[in-house]
Amino acid sequence: MQSKGILMVVSGFAGVGKGTVIKELLSTQSQYTLSVSATTRAPRPGEVDGVNYFFRTREEFEQMIHENGLIEHAEYVGNYYGTPKAYVEEQLNLGKNVILEIEIQGAMNIKKQFPEAVLIFILPPDAKTLKERLVGRGTETMEVIEKRMNRACQEAEGIEEYDYVVVNDEVPQCAMRIHEIIEAEKAKAKKNLSLIESIRNGLKNL
Amino acid sequence: MQSKGILMVVSGFAGVGKGTVIKELLSTQSQYTLSVSATTRAPRPGEVDGVNYFFRTREEFEQMIHENGLIEHAEYVGNYYGTPKAYVEEQLNLGKNVILEIEIQGAMNIKKQFPEAVLIFILPPDAKTLKERLVGRGTETMEVIEKRMNRACQEAEGIEEYDYVVVNDEVPQCAMRIHEIIEAEKAKAKKNLSLIESIRNGLKNL
Repeated sequence: MQSKGILMVVSGFAGVGKGTVIKELLSTQSQYTLSVSATTRAPRPGEVDGVNYFFRTREEFEQMIHENGLIEHAEYVGNYYGTPKAYVEEQLNLGKNVILEIEIQGAMNIKKQFPEAVLIFILPPDAKTLKERLVGRGTETMEVIEKRMNRACQEAEGIEEYDYVVVNDEVPQCAMRIHEIIEAEKAKAKKNLSLIESIRNGLKNL
Repeated sequence: MQSKGILMVVSGFAGVGKGTVIKELLSTQSQYTLSVSATTRAPRPGEVDGVNYFFRTREEFEQMIHENGLIEHAEYVGNYYGTPKAYVEEQLNLGKNVILEIEIQGAMNIKKQFPEAVLIFILPPDAKTLKERLVGRGTETMEVIEKRMNRACQEAEGIEEYDYVVVNDEVPQCAMRIHEIIEAEKAKAKKNLSLIESIRNGLKNL
């Protein structure tokens, strides 16, 4: 039975390792694909257009908004971020589960438009671990770290709005938990009405 | 984190193999336990009191009802069936997931009283397979088989009321799907409010 894929939002604090968890999921399970966001922020060293983001000018981005080419967009610290519609719809129709790695504001926009989307928030095992991970990268100043921690505090206010939380203690286990959640979502009775109907008709016609 | 276990209802047509699937789940995962129902029907050959059912007289059963000792009960083809309360509550508090293998009428009673209970309906791969399994046992007359098929038709009307459906194509896979559903249920944000709160407080106090 080739059913439509599931639209998934994966969020989490900076430093929680969500990129690594998503990579693990993509490399171990073929039925997932990652949606590439569009943004007006400048590429960071090593970031590639069309891979990490679609890098667009403010004018180009606003054009996409006007043409209804984004399923959600949000402005964050002076830059636009958004999810191009075409790729997501195409992949869902192919039966792929499409992962959106977006912030809480975008996540809430998705939930409003697509109530059947599955929102997952990745938690650190504890707050101390999160701070250690942020500091442990060794690439950021204390100022940047403090800024991220403050942002984490703000994001933490919205976690209950997500459908599920998973703890990233070990990457493979965390990826597996996300996979279990999606498998369970696919088993929901309301997502299997045609299977139920065919069993019912089959029983009547025996 | 020792959290409360999940109350699970597992139903399915006669012959779908739900007993075998539940046995597989119990033997491979230690965090599940099966609730033993009470009934007024006579024991069948080989059935043991306290293992397959608690066999009770009609008077004893009605006494249990009056003493509020059952979390649900239903009358089916002239006999009472019910779920004794004490064992279920004790096991849930120990963190065990308690499986109730009950009929649709009992399942709906459970859902009304315990909206957080997880209702799972086991489906055959198709109606033809179900009939083959029923006939294949070689122990029943065609009359009994027809009766069961008619009952299956009635039960099939209520499948959408369940939370999840799983197909029993292969027993280990079917048991694993049920386990995934329960793991996903445990990951629901609303079941992890204290974890979320502790992360939030930890972030604020760093």
